[in-house]
Amino acid sequence: MAAPHHRASSVLERLLNEGSVEEYAYRLAPKSHAFARIPREPHITAETVEARWQALAAPGERRERLLDAQTRAQMEAYQRNIENFIGTVKLPVGIAGPLRVNGLHAQGDYVVPLATTEAALVASYSRGSQLITRAGGCTALLLNEGVSRAPGFAFRDLIEAGRFVSWVLSQMDAFRAAAATTTRHGRLLDLRVTVEGNHVYLGFDYATGDAAGQNMVTIATEAVCRYILEHTPVEPQYSFVEANLSGDKKASALSFLSVRGKKVTAEVHLPAELVKAGLHTTPEQMVNYWRMSAMGGVLSGTVGVQGHYANGLAALYIACGQDAACVAESAVGVTRFELTGDGDLYAAVTLPNLIVGTVGGGTGLPSQRACLELLGLAGPGHAQALAEICAALALAGELSIIGALAAGHFARAHQQLARGSGKDA
Amino acid sequence: MAAPHHRASSVLERLLNEGSVEEYAYRLAPKSHAFARIPREPHITAETVEARWQALAAPGERRERLLDAQTRAQMEAYQRNIENFIGTVKLPVGIAGPLRVNGLHAQGDYVVPLATTEAALVASYSRGSQLITRAGGCTALLLNEGVSRAPGFAFRDLIEAGRFVSWVLSQMDAFRAAAATTTRHGRLLDLRVTVEGNHVYLGFDYATGDAAGQNMVTIATEAVCRYILEHTPVEPQYSFVEANLSGDKKASALSFLSVRGKKVTAEVHLPAELVKAGLHTTPEQMVNYWRMSAMGGVLSGTVGVQGHYANGLAALYIACGQDAACVAESAVGVTRFELTGDGDLYAAVTLPNLIVGTVGGGTGLPSQRACLELLGLAGPGHAQALAEICAALALAGELSIIGALAAGHFARAHQQLARGSGKDA
Amino acid sequence: MAAPHHRASSVLERLLNEGSVEEYAYRLAPKSHAFARIPREPHITAETVEARWQALAAPGERRERLLDAQTRAQMEAYQRNIENFIGTVKLPVGIAGPLRVNGLHAQGDYVVPLATTEAALVASYSRGSQLITRAGGCTALLLNEGVSRAPGFAFRDLIEAGRFVSWVLSQMDAFRAAAATTTRHGRLLDLRVTVEGNHVYLGFDYATGDAAGQNMVTIATEAVCRYILEHTPVEPQYSFVEANLSGDKKASALSFLSVRGKKVTAEVHLPAELVKAGLHTTPEQMVNYWRMSAMGGVLSGTVGVQGHYANGLAALYIACGQDAACVAESAVGVTRFELTGDGDLYAAVTLPNLIVGTVGGGTGLPSQRACLELLGLAGPGHAQALAEICAALALAGELSIIGALAAGHFARAHQQLARGSGKDA
Amino acid sequence: MAAPHHRASSVLERLLNEGSVEEYAYRLAPKSHAFARIPREPHITAETVEARWQALAAPGERRERLLDAQTRAQMEAYQRNIENFIGTVKLPVGIAGPLRVNGLHAQGDYVVPLATTEAALVASYSRGSQLITRAGGCTALLLNEGVSRAPGFAFRDLIEAGRFVSWVLSQMDAFRAAAATTTRHGRLLDLRVTVEGNHVYLGFDYATGDAAGQNMVTIATEAVCRYILEHTPVEPQYSFVEANLSGDKKASALSFLSVRGKKVTAEVHLPAELVKAGLHTTPEQMVNYWRMSAMGGVLSGTVGVQGHYANGLAALYIACGQDAACVAESAVGVTRFELTGDGDLYAAVTLPNLIVGTVGGGTGLPSQRACLELLGLAGPGHAQALAEICAALALAGELSIIGALAAGHFARAHQQLARGSGKDA
Repeated sequence: MAAPHHRASSVLERLLNEGSVEEYAYRLAPKSHAFARIPREPHITAETVEARWQALAAPGERRERLLDAQTRAQMEAYQRNIENFIGTVKLPVGIAGPLRVNGLHAQGDYVVPLATTEAALVASYSRGSQLITRAGGCTALLLNEGVSRAPGFAFRDLIEAGRFVSWVLSQMDAFRAAAATTTRHGRLLDLRVTVEGNHVYLGFDYATGDAAGQNMVTIATEAVCRYILEHTPVEPQYSFVEANLSGDKKASALSFLSVRGKKVTAEVHLPAELVKAGLHTTPEQMVNYWRMSAMGGVLSGTVGVQGHYANGLAALYIACGQDAACVAESAVGVTRFELTGDGDLYAAVTLPNLIVGTVGGGTGLPSQRACLELLGLAGPGHAQALAEICAALALAGELSIIGALAAGHFARAHQQLARGSGKDA
Repeated sequence: MAAPHHRASSVLERLLNEGSVEEYAYRLAPKSHAFARIPREPHITAETVEARWQALAAPGERRERLLDAQTRAQMEAYQRNIENFIGTVKLPVGIAGPLRVNGLHAQGDYVVPLATTEAALVASYSRGSQLITRAGGCTALLLNEGVSRAPGFAFRDLIEAGRFVSWVLSQMDAFRAAAATTTRHGRLLDLRVTVEGNHVYLGFDYATGDAAGQNMVTIATEAVCRYILEHTPVEPQYSFVEANLSGDKKASALSFLSVRGKKVTAEVHLPAELVKAGLHTTPEQMVNYWRMSAMGGVLSGTVGVQGHYANGLAALYIACGQDAACVAESAVGVTRFELTGDGDLYAAVTLPNLIVGTVGGGTGLPSQRACLELLGLAGPGHAQALAEICAALALAGELSIIGALAAGHFARAHQQLARGSGKDA
Repeated sequence: MAAPHHRASSVLERLLNEGSVEEYAYRLAPKSHAFARIPREPHITAETVEARWQALAAPGERRERLLDAQTRAQMEAYQRNIENFIGTVKLPVGIAGPLRVNGLHAQGDYVVPLATTEAALVASYSRGSQLITRAGGCTALLLNEGVSRAPGFAFRDLIEAGRFVSWVLSQMDAFRAAAATTTRHGRLLDLRVTVEGNHVYLGFDYATGDAAGQNMVTIATEAVCRYILEHTPVEPQYSFVEANLSGDKKASALSFLSVRGKKVTAEVHLPAELVKAGLHTTPEQMVNYWRMSAMGGVLSGTVGVQGHYANGLAALYIACGQDAACVAESAVGVTRFELTGDGDLYAAVTLPNLIVGTVGGGTGLPSQRACLELLGLAGPGHAQALAEICAALALAGELSIIGALAAGHFARAHQQLARGSGKDA
Repeated sequence: MAAPHHRASSVLERLLNEGSVEEYAYRLAPKSHAFARIPREPHITAETVEARWQALAAPGERRERLLDAQTRAQMEAYQRNIENFIGTVKLPVGIAGPLRVNGLHAQGDYVVPLATTEAALVASYSRGSQLITRAGGCTALLLNEGVSRAPGFAFRDLIEAGRFVSWVLSQMDAFRAAAATTTRHGRLLDLRVTVEGNHVYLGFDYATGDAAGQNMVTIATEAVCRYILEHTPVEPQYSFVEANLSGDKKASALSFLSVRGKKVTAEVHLPAELVKAGLHTTPEQMVNYWRMSAMGGVLSGTVGVQGHYANGLAALYIACGQDAACVAESAVGVTRFELTGDGDLYAAVTLPNLIVGTVGGGTGLPSQRACLELLGLAGPGHAQALAEICAALALAGELSIIGALAAGHFARAHQQLARGSGKDA
């Protein structure tokens, strides 16, 4: 949005070469003509899908690419995951690994399914995973977990806000009971009070079992809010079940300082000879890269400092039926590389904000469940292990990407895998 | 990662109830036994895929869910997008709209394909889109574009760093020429110099035509770096083609202050009666929500302030073959709601960091290209329009989500669409 | 540090016009000639001060400006506040007010001494204070308090780090006892554990009575660390009594999310006629400014959003013997302006990070104590009231500055008070 | 502001033990009784000062501490720096050094006057300065300079905002001329355009000669805004001469990414034996501290990562008549420590946001000018050298503080200098 003068002028010039100010004003102005509606019918049936395709008036070949035979056969499976269904998009899945994880919850060698359309991604994570595995695996430790909702309440003034807070702090048991009426698996853990002028935010933290839990905590918090509005001695001027103090689907400093999803740290000690054999560089050069890139992250104002976790997390989330939008908050953390006294490489990642589950959401859909099964993590009892694998995978990615940058192979890898000679990608 | 004492203790307690410290230490320690390799064969052929499935030793039914007939038939299409291919994951696609966009580049009523497994998402974006359309559409304006790479160079001291910078500033034409040898579509626009002690970061900004362009700029920058290393009068101690000052796949303050992808702003004026009819609330209450949630965002340390753009962007990126990992940087921006003098609602979103393209990446894959075709945006000449649609979609999402929160319908919508009675999701 | 190409070139050009690269390299290079030492004698006596002035070889008139008669007479008073003493610098003090504060701790009309050399500052805060007072005063509420230190411990690996954390969590009583041996007024309140790879940060929060308390918590934490190093079952590779996770003298997101100093919120309802009479603008225009400036703050990546608290806080801190360096962390917070249903202005500020005390530090020095006495807040029992006055003052400043900006008087005020015609300042 | 449940409850409990909710509500409520005014008379004369002291009804001894003989004699000197003058506050000044600076602008051994009431501060900076000097001095490099103002303009919609931007970009020469009518020393350098919905921010960057320049740029920008409002083809709904996108007196990510004050980097190579002799620790341990504290800074969400620059900058700013409120923005930057190939310590600091001048502001006041004269930097021609000394001083402070932390002497130094046995400070 910000552009220095000489740059902004050239953007504008390019534009105005192509049309007059009046033409542009016309393009940008609202237009009141009628519009065609999309057929709305909540249930997925052959008829409703057909009606939608009729409305789209697309050639049959295009429809076939989205609404293939398997999709047609399985479409009822998507009933609770989508509205206005017209078919499925297919993302290629590759496997990376084996990735040996020595975690509290994850134990063993994992072959990790990754769904992406970015060339070199799977190869890079696979390379990093094997390096870790050759070193005996990485240690991964789930440090904390919880999912929060933060309703907000507005009062006339601080006096009423104070009275409200005073009452709220005495009601924790009632809040727990109200939340419990809505869920078997969720449990209200804690309450965090924030006062900003006459606004009060209540941050409710929940345990959510093996579900990622965002719906669960919304519904539970709505029940708590109903209780509050029925019983509060001071009526708020207005209130909302979520007032944006929970870091939901956004990178935030909050990640490091409170509870949001699953917090995991993973580390590995890599002997110098493994770094040389596997990455064609040295621990010293890896540490040089880390130092310069950590400062680069600081100078660019990122939340945390890391190479990038987003590639691996997005690919794993998509393959395994997780909520891909949560990459916005999960791809945050701290990477640290150090030279040990023995000249080896110590590497650690800490991800404060993994939002994963093995039940609910997209985890039961046919192909997504198949991916979770490949990991041995489908169904109840596996969410914590999945979080530890996410951190281990992020560590594998950092090692491989930074290794490529340190060895000067970064661009080459992309070039070879993504395109033929003379062709842009 | 941070946990107050009482909370950390209870996490620990739960753990130690289940095993001794020694048992945990054993689980966490590296283990040196042998491991099984994944068959590696770069090309996707029936044989290499078969070999991988043999190694996975998965039941045929699981394989069928990933490697269905259509996927088998089309698998060569994925050749340049994935390694270690084993099949495809299917994400359900729903359509939202119509969304009327009055943009510089996008013009007309769009039906937007969204791939997600989160119930209520498509319905919510569709509701917001129709509301915008009823108001005559939203105005969307591409403000700037460019993709950057930031190589880093380390010197002995500031004196050498200064000499290097002095030389670099005289070489812009040579850098342009070096970059031009690698790409027909990319063009080096600008150079930004950052000195931190004896470290020098060079931020190269490129125009990338209709490609998202991350590979293109990496390869071009590698060519520039080769030129630098061959000609520099002062040799750096070490250098890297990317030193993490480009905001790549990370939310960063940089987004607002320099060029990273496509910057777009979109706005709509919504008459009060439309807000009431479409969202069952009032402009005043929408503005109340905005104000409280903007402060919530500030208090939680987000980059920008917004409800969440991540849901819509992730769903559109996945459906249309964009890089889903870029949601980490793209889902950043500023939402602003205001009451106009006439009592209507003014709503605007500004997204500084959209990374989209209509050629390259996953845009040519069968189902992804079908989605781009539904938008009328497949192939060259459409990247800027796609960016404007992303912003318009984000605006639709903010209106619908905030409308639901303002009307008290937020949890209810999720509850009805995502689950039956008494079942957690 | 970052500069676009055209700008960086012009900086360089200017430089190189004035000398050759070799000349610059010589200027920048280390030089090994001998140097003259400053006479070091810890105690402040007439002789040691004389020795220092002899070494400075300054004309007598310059000395007189720093070492005037009063300073000479009082110089022993500075014994515990400065080393290498040579005199005093005099900052002019003006009074702002009356400022009516309806606080939990502060009650009544305060005349606030402000030390500054910036023209218009006192006048502006005084104007805002009177406006608040005419409205019946502002409500101010101390929300929380505590000062923290965050020692860091490095281990070989996560297994040892985990063992350490497990032991630490069982030692809270011992830590309290160790801290208590060092202070009568400080009290260890809480412990916050942060794990990042093999690093463990322990955040100790203390109550510090009426002292700002930074020294107190450092000394107490050192005692705790000694206890830890003597008793820990796992020896760290190294440790530090402060590892920079306490936000000490730095603006940080931590401010909002944990305890650091005193957290205070202050609010006022201003009738529209008072806004017009006192600020020559309207509540609507004040809210327009607030909205645009809040978005400006977000776009520029500030911690919190506010006009500026720094002016008033620095002036009050200096006048009242507080630590002026703490302005770096204290001048952070959230300002919110709203139009009420009645067309009046609601204004609130929330400052999470005030570091103030009424004993210790500079609070006992002659002129500083006189300023505290003017407020009626010298000595024990007043730190909380002082914090509430800080917030009230910040509110007064926001109202006056934003009022001037909204009325278009901002530059004029500075111009008239700071300089005569045609003279730059 | 945020407090977890158990903590918030205990804060509340303490409160409610002392009074009823009604009593608290009474204390917090507005009170409409009359108030006493402060005598307002802009000019500083014996009479106006006397009138103010009469109104304060303070004992004569208190008055004497603020309004001593020298202050009475010099009080007209403060005429353009303060309103409602009642006297001066005296801050003790100590000298640190010698500090050898090998800068573009600063050259030689400086003895730096520091005004503070914090024990150990001067001793610590002096220790660091001497260490640097023994190593041949530090290299310091002014990288860029400029001061900005960011007026904001609100329009009906994006169409009008776009028209405005298009016109603005053609008016740079007229803006330069308008600015030039207000100042002999300031010069408009650049214009940066930011569009957020229907809001347009114009960031004007100025060179300000030897003044810190904040007033100068405000007045110049007001002239530019008058020109804009008289000539714009599209009238804004409202506008403000400063809309908070300039980072004024606030830590912001903007610091690193655009121009705000003076950007300086300083570095030193310290042989291992000097580290041992001067700091009683090793380069390795210094680097260990740096690494852990840099991660601590990242985890706590600071802007930049550093130990703390605030102590030295505040003390130098106060002694030398700089604006102490600017510590809020100046005390931001990046510290980097590295082990060199020879086992020595490389240390660098980069401060992007120094706001200093040697004319205007408080630089001409008697004692402040004496301090500038001690540095040899009073009057025109010295602002750039002063900025380089600030960075060198920050480097000295980092070396000394981190040295103390690395050697385990941090608390001890404070304890010995600040207090006797058993006494809290």
